[in-house]
Amino acid sequence: MTRALKTCLKDIAPLDEHAVEKAKERTRDLIMPAFALGRLHEISWQMAGIKRGIVGELRDKVIMVGAGDHGVAEEGVSLYPQEVTRQMVSGFIRGVAAINVIARHVGARVLVADFGVKGDPDPLWLSAPDRFRNKKVAPGTGNIVQGPAMTRAQAEEAIIRGIEVFEEERIRGMDIIATGDMGIANTTASAAVICSLTGLPPEEIAGKGTGLDERRLQDKVTLISRALAVNRPDSTDPLDVLAAVGGFEIGGICGWILGGAAGGLPVIVDGFISTAGAMLAVALEPKVKGYLFAGHLSEEKGHRKALEHMGLKPILDLQMRLGEGTGAALAMPLIEAGVKILTQMATFEEAGVSRGSG
Amino acid sequence: MTRALKTCLKDIAPLDEHAVEKAKERTRDLIMPAFALGRLHEISWQMAGIKRGIVGELRDKVIMVGAGDHGVAEEGVSLYPQEVTRQMVSGFIRGVAAINVIARHVGARVLVADFGVKGDPDPLWLSAPDRFRNKKVAPGTGNIVQGPAMTRAQAEEAIIRGIEVFEEERIRGMDIIATGDMGIANTTASAAVICSLTGLPPEEIAGKGTGLDERRLQDKVTLISRALAVNRPDSTDPLDVLAAVGGFEIGGICGWILGGAAGGLPVIVDGFISTAGAMLAVALEPKVKGYLFAGHLSEEKGHRKALEHMGLKPILDLQMRLGEGTGAALAMPLIEAGVKILTQMATFEEAGVSRGSG
Repeated sequence: MTRALKTCLKDIAPLDEHAVEKAKERTRDLIMPAFALGRLHEISWQMAGIKRGIVGELRDKVIMVGAGDHGVAEEGVSLYPQEVTRQMVSGFIRGVAAINVIARHVGARVLVADFGVKGDPDPLWLSAPDRFRNKKVAPGTGNIVQGPAMTRAQAEEAIIRGIEVFEEERIRGMDIIATGDMGIANTTASAAVICSLTGLPPEEIAGKGTGLDERRLQDKVTLISRALAVNRPDSTDPLDVLAAVGGFEIGGICGWILGGAAGGLPVIVDGFISTAGAMLAVALEPKVKGYLFAGHLSEEKGHRKALEHMGLKPILDLQMRLGEGTGAALAMPLIEAGVKILTQMATFEEAGVSRGSG
Repeated sequence: MTRALKTCLKDIAPLDEHAVEKAKERTRDLIMPAFALGRLHEISWQMAGIKRGIVGELRDKVIMVGAGDHGVAEEGVSLYPQEVTRQMVSGFIRGVAAINVIARHVGARVLVADFGVKGDPDPLWLSAPDRFRNKKVAPGTGNIVQGPAMTRAQAEEAIIRGIEVFEEERIRGMDIIATGDMGIANTTASAAVICSLTGLPPEEIAGKGTGLDERRLQDKVTLISRALAVNRPDSTDPLDVLAAVGGFEIGGICGWILGGAAGGLPVIVDGFISTAGAMLAVALEPKVKGYLFAGHLSEEKGHRKALEHMGLKPILDLQMRLGEGTGAALAMPLIEAGVKILTQMATFEEAGVSRGSG
């Protein structure tokens, strides 16, 4: 492991339990039945632990959408042609995709990073340095049915470039970050990563992705089984798993998460692909988990089990399966609401409201 | 039934199915796998049906918190003394309660209406006509364990005053409205209303309210059974149900919902108490249902069954049990997101993105 990665992992601190306790105490004093806002309180306590004190606002919100292509796309695991990865990156830069709409709505900015899109970055992308980062490790992974997705050195490089995105972006201000993804065929790679790390069989994890029918889903399951058999990822070695069956954007997302945790920021994990990245990050350093919020439960089959494996409870369940960071972005206002409840509500004493007997 | 109420019910139109179809068509063309944003799309279609066309923004958002007291409080069904209803109304007017914090967060305004709080309106309340409406029918209901909550004329009056709040407030601009409640012991009255309308027994509907332990919950179940036996509400007559075991704020919320539906506006229903009001509204005129969004699933025991009875699926599930409109308010940004997705995203053609084969 390179020094850059080791240093980042070492910088990830446990949450501040003292701040968590302070937050719980204040919650008890707020004018409502004890803990009547359920998850909002839990969110605010975790936020206090992450921020090492009670914070009242989350001003700068950043969604990093990692993009990459996948050699396994040639097996027909997606309904969409591979060129859609590039086209959608252009859509993100132009601000016309779902994640742009939702990011504007929740007051977040979108940053797209190319970790492994096929071909050179488009001139349009390079013309927007505030929205785009060229972090390409290689133009697409190998077809995992035939061999490894990438070398071990490339796997580590993808993660380090994700950390770099975090560090470079940080100077513009960040109070909370979210993950997102774009990459045709990346539910296949993510399912393979999740199977490796959980030991669960592809039938339980692989889902319909862009909308496969039952027959094509069966083919996808078979392909993932074959990819695991061909590459034999070492489940105890996250870098080996990423190299064997992962994707460059999955590595980049893992790095973005590690950077966030090392930097003491809350990280909202999006759906299936982001969760694969988060699982790699947690496998590299279990303390990462304290910094994570699961934005939503995706419709992609194995997502629930993957979240359970990490002990994360999704905030939203809106039957979404898009990625791009859309589920994470939609959870932002709820996390902010939790934080504001803790700081803006009056206490029984302040408001002259009678306490209960419970 | 008075003419005012009859007129309102007659003004409630079916949704515009043509607009719904238009919205679905546009959704198919947006640059993502078909319908990949799940509930957000369903929300945007329903909104199109309600607004009779595709709308791109919800500017004016109003949460009406109906307040009232309940004679059954003297039976000890709440952990809090009855004076807390008044105190919390003052908290709403001062802007220091949970619903104020969340309303500010989501860009909505809060309007408090006193439909039946004990005692006269506080001078503080009357000093804030933009935030408070005096719609008191009577200062608290009768104890439903001993007799009816109110007369049939009062039940109708509470509903009509809720409609009035809607009509008066409308001139200030409203694109979407939400319901909220405050009233010590009102989960008891609401459970009785829901039992009457669904035919389900109190054991399945009554919940812990402000935080009762198991023993006190058993007492509450017994009291509700007794209230139903003493008053024998006619389940086919919503006004009789409200008069027998309801509450003034439950009637007011019912009226606010009827006004919203008659006025062609989407209505977000909050938790247990608001759902009792919504069920009365739907019982009075089934077409109301098309205008309703269930903001969240409350922790209060019977809420899921009450929503199922109306065929409503909650948007959020955050283990909340506060009321005040908090769950409805938190759903507002998600409804707005659905609407914006439909209008702000590019189509495949506009963005030059390849279509899938699915």
